[in-house]
Amino acid sequence: MDEGPAPAAGPPGDRVAALIGGAVGGSVRAIARLISMIESGGDAAAGVAAGLLGRPRGATVLGITGPPGVGKSTLITALIGRYRSRAARVAVLAVDPSSPFSGGALLGDRVRMNEHGTDPGVFIRSMSSRGELGGLSTATAGAADLLSAIGFDVVIVETVGVGQNEVAVLRLADTVLVVLSPGLGDGIQAAKAGILEIADVLVVNKADREGVATTVRDLKSMVALGRSGAADAGRWRIPVLTTVAVDRATDPDGAERAGIDRLLDAVDTHRQHLDRHEGADARAVRRAEAAVEALVLQRLQAALHAPAGRESLARAATEVAAGGADTHTAADRVLRGLIGG
Amino acid sequence: MDEGPAPAAGPPGDRVAALIGGAVGGSVRAIARLISMIESGGDAAAGVAAGLLGRPRGATVLGITGPPGVGKSTLITALIGRYRSRAARVAVLAVDPSSPFSGGALLGDRVRMNEHGTDPGVFIRSMSSRGELGGLSTATAGAADLLSAIGFDVVIVETVGVGQNEVAVLRLADTVLVVLSPGLGDGIQAAKAGILEIADVLVVNKADREGVATTVRDLKSMVALGRSGAADAGRWRIPVLTTVAVDRATDPDGAERAGIDRLLDAVDTHRQHLDRHEGADARAVRRAEAAVEALVLQRLQAALHAPAGRESLARAATEVAAGGADTHTAADRVLRGLIGG
Repeated sequence: MDEGPAPAAGPPGDRVAALIGGAVGGSVRAIARLISMIESGGDAAAGVAAGLLGRPRGATVLGITGPPGVGKSTLITALIGRYRSRAARVAVLAVDPSSPFSGGALLGDRVRMNEHGTDPGVFIRSMSSRGELGGLSTATAGAADLLSAIGFDVVIVETVGVGQNEVAVLRLADTVLVVLSPGLGDGIQAAKAGILEIADVLVVNKADREGVATTVRDLKSMVALGRSGAADAGRWRIPVLTTVAVDRATDPDGAERAGIDRLLDAVDTHRQHLDRHEGADARAVRRAEAAVEALVLQRLQAALHAPAGRESLARAATEVAAGGADTHTAADRVLRGLIGG
Repeated sequence: MDEGPAPAAGPPGDRVAALIGGAVGGSVRAIARLISMIESGGDAAAGVAAGLLGRPRGATVLGITGPPGVGKSTLITALIGRYRSRAARVAVLAVDPSSPFSGGALLGDRVRMNEHGTDPGVFIRSMSSRGELGGLSTATAGAADLLSAIGFDVVIVETVGVGQNEVAVLRLADTVLVVLSPGLGDGIQAAKAGILEIADVLVVNKADREGVATTVRDLKSMVALGRSGAADAGRWRIPVLTTVAVDRATDPDGAERAGIDRLLDAVDTHRQHLDRHEGADARAVRRAEAAVEALVLQRLQAALHAPAGRESLARAATEVAAGGADTHTAADRVLRGLIGG
């Protein structure tokens, strides 16, 4: 082993390598520092990505989304418990694209998850950004990749809704759970298209509440309608499951949780389905594609915000404002000028 | 006047011109059709932009944002009423980045605004998209520009929160109102940085509720803290106003609305401040800059989704998945390859 400095690895590379070493060893501080570097983007994020090159990624990435108030965090807490009983190391990335307005709620959620707060096999982090478009999904993809590379077995990515940012974030998941609760009624109708596009498993949480039968029936017929056309043997059938995930903070004795094991079974079954029909390699390629695409957009945005980009934008905007060009023509010119060299 | 066909204006250009003519004449159908073309992006959107070239844009663009439940829609309904009494034509674009989950709520909001539903001087449209990142803000900017160009005096852009998408959307507004309600407490603390960055006027709606004095005091001290450092005579001081905007549907007799006139005064004062310190031309340039920037990003995304782009992405992803390159290096290569020619 040559212990002299490699040409490409200057002091920043050494520092990243040391942090990655610490993170693999379980240092929460090192993990947090690396995620901050990923969030800051640019050279720091690129340095972390380079430092992780060649490490195997073994984690199952679970995406969990649903409207506010359906009990996503309590459900995640219950899932963490089951994964821990299998001795799996679990990380949670709580993604909040509309922060800081909902920042308060997210903090509350993190506190609720603190049932596992002192367990070294559990890492919980919230990701939020008021920064550039695409920045949050890029950072989340980077953080999930890091957590997988340093040895977590399960990475749970929690988000709210199925808007543009959320879909970008959820593209990195192996399995996506969409969580609803009884009585959403109209909401489910409106969400139809979005849900079927993204869900691998549908979960009706708070299944001890009134209206659960109706909600389950509505979802099942929605799934059946979405499967119209010729039967496809290789196609995944979205299961509709019910769960009761009770918050230990409000129900310290009972901690009655129902349906969690069946939910984990469904996740495992979906994973097997993926392995059979897509394979781990194809999945890795798909995930890399989402990550590279998000980064390409972020790179362009960085170029736009550099001095040359700002100048080119300002020139174009002046022309548009004076009525000399429309925005589309001006945008084409800026894009070509920026990267065409 | 040469009435022969100009080389650039084929039949699609004629059709856009006819629609624009209809929209100027007040045809709701023509306006809706043009906005759909803008939303669909690509050549259709570029065609509309080209068709509007040279038309003056006279509208004041008002951005209104705030967390769910503070009464934004009722407040907008009240504002529309006041603007109508000044004989101003008003358009509302309700932007919902996290649709379709909140689609239901938005529909309800639209119904509530229907107090003005039969008034030909009022146009209301919801914008939502589960499509490409940046697509929603681009489409909203395009729609606001259209509405301004066809003669609306006021364009109100309503959004929820101050996340990435919302900030992009609100960049096109002359004046941004951030609406809160009493008792948000922690929420306000968390939202501090985001609010000060974006608000021109702070509104505490539902001011007949308990806790309004505390909320106003908190916001005022927040504004005062944000103004630290040397006094700047040309700097806008964010006013904190209280309003009571009552829903006519739930309160058909009373319709008691307080503070709306003072709110309009504050908007007018801010507009005068802008005219004095920035000027209409500089503002038009700033708005064009936001529009062009969003379009540049969208153009790149379109290039990524074209066959050559897909192929380049797939190649990069395969290399990343095999451990041959990190995502950042791969993204650089894709970006250069795509546009570098």
